[in-house]
Amino acid sequence: MELRRKIEEIARKAKNAQPIVARTSTEVKNQVLKSMAQVLEKNISYLEKENKKDIVSAEKRGLSSALIDRLRLTPKRIKEMSACLKEVADLPDPVGEIIKMWRRPNGLKIGKMRVPIGVIAIIYESRPNVTSDCVGLCIKSGNAVILRGGSEAFNSNRAIYNILISAAGNMIPQEAIQFVPTTDRKAVDYLLKLDKYIDLLIPRGGQSLIKYVTAKARMPVIKHYKGVCHVYVDRDADLEMAMKICFNAKVQRPGVCNAMETLLVDEKIAQEFLPLMLEKFREAGVEIRGCKRTKKIVPWVKDARESDWYAEYLDLILAVRVVSGVDSAIEHIRKYGSNHSDAIVTEDYETAWKFLEEVDSSAVYVNASTRFTDGYQFGLGAEMGISTDKIHARGPMGLEELTTYKYIIFGDGQIRK
Amino acid sequence: MELRRKIEEIARKAKNAQPIVARTSTEVKNQVLKSMAQVLEKNISYLEKENKKDIVSAEKRGLSSALIDRLRLTPKRIKEMSACLKEVADLPDPVGEIIKMWRRPNGLKIGKMRVPIGVIAIIYESRPNVTSDCVGLCIKSGNAVILRGGSEAFNSNRAIYNILISAAGNMIPQEAIQFVPTTDRKAVDYLLKLDKYIDLLIPRGGQSLIKYVTAKARMPVIKHYKGVCHVYVDRDADLEMAMKICFNAKVQRPGVCNAMETLLVDEKIAQEFLPLMLEKFREAGVEIRGCKRTKKIVPWVKDARESDWYAEYLDLILAVRVVSGVDSAIEHIRKYGSNHSDAIVTEDYETAWKFLEEVDSSAVYVNASTRFTDGYQFGLGAEMGISTDKIHARGPMGLEELTTYKYIIFGDGQIRK
Repeated sequence: MELRRKIEEIARKAKNAQPIVARTSTEVKNQVLKSMAQVLEKNISYLEKENKKDIVSAEKRGLSSALIDRLRLTPKRIKEMSACLKEVADLPDPVGEIIKMWRRPNGLKIGKMRVPIGVIAIIYESRPNVTSDCVGLCIKSGNAVILRGGSEAFNSNRAIYNILISAAGNMIPQEAIQFVPTTDRKAVDYLLKLDKYIDLLIPRGGQSLIKYVTAKARMPVIKHYKGVCHVYVDRDADLEMAMKICFNAKVQRPGVCNAMETLLVDEKIAQEFLPLMLEKFREAGVEIRGCKRTKKIVPWVKDARESDWYAEYLDLILAVRVVSGVDSAIEHIRKYGSNHSDAIVTEDYETAWKFLEEVDSSAVYVNASTRFTDGYQFGLGAEMGISTDKIHARGPMGLEELTTYKYIIFGDGQIRK
Repeated sequence: MELRRKIEEIARKAKNAQPIVARTSTEVKNQVLKSMAQVLEKNISYLEKENKKDIVSAEKRGLSSALIDRLRLTPKRIKEMSACLKEVADLPDPVGEIIKMWRRPNGLKIGKMRVPIGVIAIIYESRPNVTSDCVGLCIKSGNAVILRGGSEAFNSNRAIYNILISAAGNMIPQEAIQFVPTTDRKAVDYLLKLDKYIDLLIPRGGQSLIKYVTAKARMPVIKHYKGVCHVYVDRDADLEMAMKICFNAKVQRPGVCNAMETLLVDEKIAQEFLPLMLEKFREAGVEIRGCKRTKKIVPWVKDARESDWYAEYLDLILAVRVVSGVDSAIEHIRKYGSNHSDAIVTEDYETAWKFLEEVDSSAVYVNASTRFTDGYQFGLGAEMGISTDKIHARGPMGLEELTTYKYIIFGDGQIRK
């Protein structure tokens, strides 16, 4: 009961502070973000010290080295956090933008004005840079934010939060940035009930977290779910380009949601493409699980099962399937994909547009690696996450995606007849 | 169990048909809507006959004459339904619109393309024209739609559905328009579980329906909740204009969500404005519930209680409060309002913009009646409803609000470094 009241207090304070952030000038908001960037860089040793506590306890608990690596704060990573804040400061302020405006026959001028969403709560796991990225994006877009990081990064997240708050000083109300000061899991349950104060909830993390949050939350949720990403190599592909793109999409960083999990190859070029491509993957230590037709061409690959087409490996494993052309590739993606990021490699104009229009994923690529699905890479400065939902926001969520709009109507005495 | 399977079948069919609607050309979609408009007008007597069944059973069940009036289909109303379909046909097709596009330093061209949401289910009460409005909007925006109207309008809705389907012929797959063919309430429970097939659920109706749906739905919900709308008459108002706007906002059609429920009056002009205004309301049969300061100026008004400030009367009742200026008006609206439609009447430039920017409602008006919050009035042709939520859509939902977007990325071999 004590914790419940504490969490409610946090959300209530965020709600009350938010209208003040909403009205804060672009200039002051930018100053806040730049000051945060500066103070982060000045406190590298403090951050490393706090981060050390998390690393030590992660090692004690026997977390995988990949997870421990994600957790680690290095001077380089702290400088990147700082750079992101500066980048977001330099982006245009979305608040108050008039998206469109028109005039009705009765003389009413009707416009849509971009406004902050309100209070945004984010429940996230692992990487501590999410803390500063989200604070920067939320403040710049006029929102209040409630941060609930994973227990494994608790000390790091708190240290970052403390620095950001002190850097903000009294330029904005400190209560607009709230940190859930406990690793108690009940805090999440309490948060999920506070639709009175929280306008949007963003869960970022494993499937079990997201399912749990979606089932229990009373407020709208934008899910950041798994990425079963495909690259389809078409008969009209530049095969050298295809090779580079596929290799990059799988190998450059396999543990992330925008890495390729399934390679689809047009039957017309499979014979030419697969032996070279799969050999390259083998050299990089990638385990290949192929369909029967793949196996016929490259006998050393393992058998793919039906479950492989649904799999998000997040590892050096790749499913490979030979398809009869762009239509079957689209069909496969529709059936097994997760609407995250999918790419086609082709030099054919019509095929490229067919794929772009018919694949219903957050990000659809022609002739580029799926690894670009990322707020920073898209030019959004940073990201709150990558939405795999269809309502409100899809793909990397930046400043615009943290806003909504209201209709503003200018009249001179119009009444309804 | 039989019904559960039937409902699941309906949703599955809609899901499978939707990609075909998504790819249907603008020309064909417009032809579908125009054919629907035509066939509706040709079947006025059939529609009246089917509607009669609902009217008779409503009378038997002793429904209020206001509700029975809402239910009634007259030749005029059927022609209006037809006109709405034609209007939507004449609007630009939102599908495929490139909302924005930019170039990254690495040469990637990144754009946001408007795409349909998918399968939209609407659960609505009372007015049968909602059936044709929603079908028109959903088809034009490339979505499939599942219609679940109120049991009191079952025969009317089914008749409209039958006509629309026959008019569509085989220009689009008929399965993209689904009608829940039962008044069994369990059908709603089954629908709410089908997040596998349904991308968005829109409940339109009373509070209990909306609360029920929001609590149980597994898919995203955009709520169309109550409208506690305010008009604030500022010290710098043109009082004659204020009088007209307030009268229109309250009296022209009191039973709808965009009618004024609370009048806020600046203390500086209350003495001059209130006696005249309230007398006009009295003549129109409006019951006035005033704050203490209102009572001092116009002694015959009833006492307002705290609960009156929250009330959506949907009737000839008005709460009236004297406030100390625009800031207290905004404060009052923030505390008691429902984020639907709120208006200021003022000739002062700064005050007008202050109100526009600080009132966080779906539609904020300067010098016009709140009664304009309506898809047709805004120039959207029709509306799926009026969202009082903040995520995805606010205010009247037209074609654009029934779409989402995807990122489309054009490369020439870019890989992530």
